[in-house]
Amino acid sequence: MKHRTHAGTFALLLLLSLLAAAAPAQAQDDAAAAAVSGLDTVWVLIAAFLVFFMQAGFGMVEAGFIRAKNACNILTKNFLDYCLASIMFFLVGYAFMFGKGNALIGWTGFGLGNAAGTCPPQLPLWAFWLFQTAFCGAAATIVAGAMAERMKFAAYLMYTVVISAVVYPIIGHWVWGGGWLNRLGFADFAGSTVVHATGGWAAFIGAVLLGPRLGKYNGNGEVRAIAGHSIPLAALGVFILWFGWFGFNPGSTLSATGDSIDLIGLIAANTNLAAAAGALSAMITVWIAYGKPDLSMTMNGALAGLVAITAPCAFVSPPAALVIGAVGGVIVVAGVALLDRIRVDDPVGAVPVHGMNGLWGTLAVGLFAHNGTAQPGLFYGGGLGQLGVQALGAAACAGFSLAAMGLVFLAIRSTVGLRVPRAEELRGLDIGEHGMESYAGFQIFTTA
Amino acid sequence: MKHRTHAGTFALLLLLSLLAAAAPAQAQDDAAAAAVSGLDTVWVLIAAFLVFFMQAGFGMVEAGFIRAKNACNILTKNFLDYCLASIMFFLVGYAFMFGKGNALIGWTGFGLGNAAGTCPPQLPLWAFWLFQTAFCGAAATIVAGAMAERMKFAAYLMYTVVISAVVYPIIGHWVWGGGWLNRLGFADFAGSTVVHATGGWAAFIGAVLLGPRLGKYNGNGEVRAIAGHSIPLAALGVFILWFGWFGFNPGSTLSATGDSIDLIGLIAANTNLAAAAGALSAMITVWIAYGKPDLSMTMNGALAGLVAITAPCAFVSPPAALVIGAVGGVIVVAGVALLDRIRVDDPVGAVPVHGMNGLWGTLAVGLFAHNGTAQPGLFYGGGLGQLGVQALGAAACAGFSLAAMGLVFLAIRSTVGLRVPRAEELRGLDIGEHGMESYAGFQIFTTA
Amino acid sequence: MKHRTHAGTFALLLLLSLLAAAAPAQAQDDAAAAAVSGLDTVWVLIAAFLVFFMQAGFGMVEAGFIRAKNACNILTKNFLDYCLASIMFFLVGYAFMFGKGNALIGWTGFGLGNAAGTCPPQLPLWAFWLFQTAFCGAAATIVAGAMAERMKFAAYLMYTVVISAVVYPIIGHWVWGGGWLNRLGFADFAGSTVVHATGGWAAFIGAVLLGPRLGKYNGNGEVRAIAGHSIPLAALGVFILWFGWFGFNPGSTLSATGDSIDLIGLIAANTNLAAAAGALSAMITVWIAYGKPDLSMTMNGALAGLVAITAPCAFVSPPAALVIGAVGGVIVVAGVALLDRIRVDDPVGAVPVHGMNGLWGTLAVGLFAHNGTAQPGLFYGGGLGQLGVQALGAAACAGFSLAAMGLVFLAIRSTVGLRVPRAEELRGLDIGEHGMESYAGFQIFTTA
Repeated sequence: MKHRTHAGTFALLLLLSLLAAAAPAQAQDDAAAAAVSGLDTVWVLIAAFLVFFMQAGFGMVEAGFIRAKNACNILTKNFLDYCLASIMFFLVGYAFMFGKGNALIGWTGFGLGNAAGTCPPQLPLWAFWLFQTAFCGAAATIVAGAMAERMKFAAYLMYTVVISAVVYPIIGHWVWGGGWLNRLGFADFAGSTVVHATGGWAAFIGAVLLGPRLGKYNGNGEVRAIAGHSIPLAALGVFILWFGWFGFNPGSTLSATGDSIDLIGLIAANTNLAAAAGALSAMITVWIAYGKPDLSMTMNGALAGLVAITAPCAFVSPPAALVIGAVGGVIVVAGVALLDRIRVDDPVGAVPVHGMNGLWGTLAVGLFAHNGTAQPGLFYGGGLGQLGVQALGAAACAGFSLAAMGLVFLAIRSTVGLRVPRAEELRGLDIGEHGMESYAGFQIFTTA
Repeated sequence: MKHRTHAGTFALLLLLSLLAAAAPAQAQDDAAAAAVSGLDTVWVLIAAFLVFFMQAGFGMVEAGFIRAKNACNILTKNFLDYCLASIMFFLVGYAFMFGKGNALIGWTGFGLGNAAGTCPPQLPLWAFWLFQTAFCGAAATIVAGAMAERMKFAAYLMYTVVISAVVYPIIGHWVWGGGWLNRLGFADFAGSTVVHATGGWAAFIGAVLLGPRLGKYNGNGEVRAIAGHSIPLAALGVFILWFGWFGFNPGSTLSATGDSIDLIGLIAANTNLAAAAGALSAMITVWIAYGKPDLSMTMNGALAGLVAITAPCAFVSPPAALVIGAVGGVIVVAGVALLDRIRVDDPVGAVPVHGMNGLWGTLAVGLFAHNGTAQPGLFYGGGLGQLGVQALGAAACAGFSLAAMGLVFLAIRSTVGLRVPRAEELRGLDIGEHGMESYAGFQIFTTA
Repeated sequence: MKHRTHAGTFALLLLLSLLAAAAPAQAQDDAAAAAVSGLDTVWVLIAAFLVFFMQAGFGMVEAGFIRAKNACNILTKNFLDYCLASIMFFLVGYAFMFGKGNALIGWTGFGLGNAAGTCPPQLPLWAFWLFQTAFCGAAATIVAGAMAERMKFAAYLMYTVVISAVVYPIIGHWVWGGGWLNRLGFADFAGSTVVHATGGWAAFIGAVLLGPRLGKYNGNGEVRAIAGHSIPLAALGVFILWFGWFGFNPGSTLSATGDSIDLIGLIAANTNLAAAAGALSAMITVWIAYGKPDLSMTMNGALAGLVAITAPCAFVSPPAALVIGAVGGVIVVAGVALLDRIRVDDPVGAVPVHGMNGLWGTLAVGLFAHNGTAQPGLFYGGGLGQLGVQALGAAACAGFSLAAMGLVFLAIRSTVGLRVPRAEELRGLDIGEHGMESYAGFQIFTTA
């Protein structure tokens, strides 16, 4: 290790030591409370662990669906965006999202100091923070897939700091932190819009500004399918994501006592049924349209169903969940075709899965809700009001994500640059960005 | 996407919309119950999530133990059978299994409407349904491995609809739904017979009717070992299965309060010890018999121990769990040899693991039980009565699974056909059935 | 299967049957307790399941970071050490660790009979046992990575029996079982020393006694980097480990009621932040020192942060967790360089991750503690006393692990031998030790 290491690490340690010195005093439990059950806390923590584990799912899906020569790069991005999200959401993101402020942004609770009143009363602050951090990490990592195989690593780190520190928390404040959409009655139970569409539309604008991979679209209008290098890895990732979604949606009750007891069962069942219906309808759609039951599309159909049920999961019946998921599966197949038509290269289908189905799921609340605090949906009488609010909220969040992240990507493009050099893209980003191979010793056609 | 897509998806949506319109009204919690703890619900839901995750374990084990050219195919089957099981068990399976009916089949609760009284009182209906759905999916997917590398995808989808909608729920009704075996005192705590042997014997008859893979058995009586393409994937799968089994067995208490508090710890410990003993005894057996400690067999030994302890886990002591698991490990090694002797080609060992050890575990209740509602086992004095009931129940369920699934496979064989064409089998089902490769870019000997 | 199998398996079954006959009578719950909540039990069991799952994480990390020709071998070792730890910790390890005895070792509770008073009152014995067994398995498997690609399988099995039956339990008794370090006030909340440093220093002495892999260090002082064969597998493993650590640290409260409610949230947050900071600081350090953000080192940085926060996780504030993790990330990069300088070949970095960071985390209690039963740390006033105890305890445990395991490895080396023959090492241990390949059909440069 060369001695120029020391200056950098010393600065880092100094910064962190200052933070440590400013440590917030943790409220100590009163001994009289020793008999109280921590079931809500246990439920939310376990849900947080499951949502954290989705990060592995995203990583495996993204890596599996791209070429071997870029697998290590996407995994590094995926890994680091969770790490950066953890730290940024601790330092500032939580304050912007849940702090006391105005209709647009929160402004207390930086570093989770002075955070009184920002957290549901049944939960310890740190349990709530961890659950929300895992959500923030999910929003950040969705982008990685759409910009895979050609984006600079340093540019990725910059973008992920901004989305997890500022953009996601602001949208989160609007919907879940007492902001203007929350006041209007916008209903997004577990984040079809807040998490998935935020990430999905950021992925869209990123993929547009970055341009397609070399060789993806030829001059004569032909679209070249670039096959993923490990379908088993991607399949594992989808299973992990589905597994983790059982934390994402049911955990969003933030409670497992009282009224939540029935609700968590209903939400878990809806989540499962929408995923199953999404997979099946995507498989049927692609089988009819292209002649073969493609596994990649089937798996993306399950993810589409999961994203779509995320907003309405607590408000709808299981049969409605089947419909919502099944429509999601069709949307993902159509969405992939649409992106290719407009020459936007999204290697893993992040935009159809998270953006388009985030939108669909948000609107579905206005169509199918019949349970809980959302207004009854259209199919249950008089839902135009709720549907209108849902459309407004989805549009506002999409607009903000597109605009804010578009500016961020443009700023990065005009400074450090978004895209790796052509030679590096051909050879693969694993070697170029990280100096390592994903599969040392294996004979791989790296230009494939 | 071609326009013929529209007709198919429209029909699908219409069907699902009709279901949505008929949505069952969810009982709403009374506000007075707000302080009640949902611990039983949380326990069963988390167990359900773990059992769901076993699907990933099955997928990785099955894919890892076969050749690369068929990995995507087996993963699609594995993925789809859970999706189909979810939907079929919602529409009809739950009603056949837990509905009020007679000693042979249930007949209320289709689509979980009119399902009052079908679910344990401490659990919300949807939590119970999800847990049971995950079990149903496990029974369905066990078959995939035994019929891998040569079965048509469409045939697989047909079979999986029948086993998850009808065959598994009927056996489930007999044992867990108040049916005739339940009334006789047949004891299968978490499903050695109901889940594993049902799947295992269906796998057996399927493998018989399908015939061995090309090149597995030569004319001169030689057996060719066809090596799996990714032992690390299979090892991961075994770990995931073991992990998920901690939901499968301990979760089957359906409660974590009162008497169940001690029981869940005992069951978890028994599960762990049986798996460890199974792995160790299989490794020792194969080491002695063939000269090397083969990892595939060792891992199957762990699975054998897990299957074997599934029925008796709540009724036996930890030392008995060690014996049960250790015997399971020997059975799996002997069972693999036996199948080869009778020329039944089971690429992943599904029949020895799930069928033979499901039988062994069911009988073990009659030998070792000394705890809970099962009669004391033979080694604890006078267990011949219980042992007889166990043998009767195991035989009846095996017979039904063999007969019903045999008829299903014969019906499929004489219509759409069970087996892919010879050329497709040689080239691999990934290309033939799905038009995709599992490992694009890798240099693989696909005839291996 | 040849008939000489029968003698071996018969002996095994006889042994186990004797154990089964001596089954301890499980205390039966009183029906009056039926309304009592099992939340503490559920929490500890779920934590145990997560810690068990870390075994898969260790396996994937170890396999991914070494060459394909040895992947199956390391996975077998990893798999078997958990199995052996389960059985040994049941037979004798638990008694040595938690049994009533003296300051050095426990002596009641063999086979968990006569185990009254060895377990926290809020937990059933078997739930506590399973949680502790998973910890024991972790200590055992840490060694595998450092001795990978050259150690005999039979030697590995011998070593793992000793560490899980004797060495780990004795250190555990000192710290957690009422032994001398416990009495001195040594604070190791979840096992930076007890689990990680015990494994890490055993790994160190093992790697020293085994010698480097062929070709690792050339005569001219050059160090050859031997690349891992599957970075995606390793990345998955790190995610699984991080996920499992949410059981390891927060589960070590052994309760989720009363004072533990706030504590489990704080511990989970600290765990997450230390991991994130470790990854980031390792990435920055390696980027500055070597010019590229290496993923292997970044992932080891996360693990370093996790190991380091394990002792202090319940005693420090989140900003302190960031500092502790960040320092851990630097230590791991420096530690890898240091080992290469002294020519100790540790293929996966087990010594820097678990040994050096286990030490760092143990000392960090004396620097940063300000919460709970540990004395306030140095940065919170007057911590030299606690820091001294921490240093003494870390040194004593390291010394015992180095000495005891050093003797074990020497004894094995002089009898069955530690190291495979040169030809087998070149060809790979998968074929040599297990007669199988990890990736049948793939074209792999096995000498790579």
